[in-house]
Amino acid sequence: MTETTSRPFDILNRALSKNVLVKLKGDVEIRGTLASFDVHMNVVIENGEELKNGELKRKLGTVLLRGDTIVFVSPS
Amino acid sequence: MTETTSRPFDILNRALSKNVLVKLKGDVEIRGTLASFDVHMNVVIENGEELKNGELKRKLGTVLLRGDTIVFVSPS
Amino acid sequence: MTETTSRPFDILNRALSKNVLVKLKGDVEIRGTLASFDVHMNVVIENGEELKNGELKRKLGTVLLRGDTIVFVSPS
Amino acid sequence: MTETTSRPFDILNRALSKNVLVKLKGDVEIRGTLASFDVHMNVVIENGEELKNGELKRKLGTVLLRGDTIVFVSPS
Amino acid sequence: MTETTSRPFDILNRALSKNVLVKLKGDVEIRGTLASFDVHMNVVIENGEELKNGELKRKLGTVLLRGDTIVFVSPS
Amino acid sequence: MTETTSRPFDILNRALSKNVLVKLKGDVEIRGTLASFDVHMNVVIENGEELKNGELKRKLGTVLLRGDTIVFVSPS
Amino acid sequence: MTETTSRPFDILNRALSKNVLVKLKGDVEIRGTLASFDVHMNVVIENGEELKNGELKRKLGTVLLRGDTIVFVSPS
Repeated sequence: MTETTSRPFDILNRALSKNVLVKLKGDVEIRGTLASFDVHMNVVIENGEELKNGELKRKLGTVLLRGDTIVFVSPS
Repeated sequence: MTETTSRPFDILNRALSKNVLVKLKGDVEIRGTLASFDVHMNVVIENGEELKNGELKRKLGTVLLRGDTIVFVSPS
Repeated sequence: MTETTSRPFDILNRALSKNVLVKLKGDVEIRGTLASFDVHMNVVIENGEELKNGELKRKLGTVLLRGDTIVFVSPS
Repeated sequence: MTETTSRPFDILNRALSKNVLVKLKGDVEIRGTLASFDVHMNVVIENGEELKNGELKRKLGTVLLRGDTIVFVSPS
Repeated sequence: MTETTSRPFDILNRALSKNVLVKLKGDVEIRGTLASFDVHMNVVIENGEELKNGELKRKLGTVLLRGDTIVFVSPS
Repeated sequence: MTETTSRPFDILNRALSKNVLVKLKGDVEIRGTLASFDVHMNVVIENGEELKNGELKRKLGTVLLRGDTIVFVSPS
Repeated sequence: MTETTSRPFDILNRALSKNVLVKLKGDVEIRGTLASFDVHMNVVIENGEELKNGELKRKLGTVLLRGDTIVFVSPS
């Protein structure tokens, strides 16, 4: 398979220490600073906030998100 | 298994830097420019827009979509 | 395991360049011309139409369907 | 693990060219002639009929059912 | 990992040719005689009856249940 | 990865022959004596009782629970 | 893939013997002391409390949570 030189996970690397929005299955979203990630797309967010329908539900601080519950990650 | 010379992922290669519509599980759709993809069908969309029932919900900018939440990818 | 000489994916081979109906999880169906497929049952449909409850919802043109969202493929 | 001499897939072998009822996830059922199967339980049904709540919904002819959407296969 | 000498699948071995109740995902249950099983927990039930909310819905005769749709198997 | 000396499955070992509560996906719970388990978290419960919303629904006797339907296991 | 020196599971290591909030699929949450975990993200919580919509539903004591039902783990 011919493939591009850039790869999807590159945007996680470039987003380290920056703000990201993570959409999870089941209409939950987490916003915060991307602290680390692995090949399974498990990610750690710092100063994380849980959003429900775009509204702040609660502050979570540090949170480890399991990769297989992630729909998308968007650097802001 | 006899197989065709073209393969499904070829259309992702041809769609690089072009507009695509990506339908995700749970009635969410993302429209934008295909920037990269990998063998798991993880894709990065630039200038991404999130659509709900065909209407623009919000602009996401760059977004990494996890492959296993994708229903289809359609170049436009 | 004793197995038949013909195999399920043979019908995909015979359906290449022909019309197929693909039922996806979540009551979406795609109708169009089968252009390619791989061992994961990822398929590319050309001149694809998205159907909802049997009615045309929109024309998609070329579309890559992810194998694990497919319920069935039926050549017409 | 001690195991019986007969194995579950044996009933698929014995059902080849015979009528079967296949129940899929999501309350869809397919009835028709078992034409082939593989180790993933992908099956091809010929003269397939799609049933919803036990009523004929439409005739599908030949249809490839993806194994991981199958709940059960019952020879009739 | 220290483990007990008996293993979960032993109860399937002991239940061969005996009546079992199998609960499937989606509130369907099958009752009948356990005829065979494999390491994926695919099982064949003979004289199978499909139950919905504890009531007989229909007689299925022989039925191959796909392992990954099983919630539990209980010998009676 | 640095890891603790105790491991999650140790609590299953210590719970053998003792009462456990097992929560399954789909709001079903099983209470009874843990008789065996394997690396997939398949477990056998003896004198098992099925609970729905905390109320006894029926007595199951011996029951093999498929690991991938388990949410949690709690020794009581 | 270039990766950060810290990894997602590091926060589980640092959270051992401390309070964590674990969100599970299906709107259930468990709060308690993280006692152990493994590479599948199976975790053992001690003095665990089950929460539903943020309210205490019941005390569970020790509980083994299956990794694939976890949405996130947040040290408090």
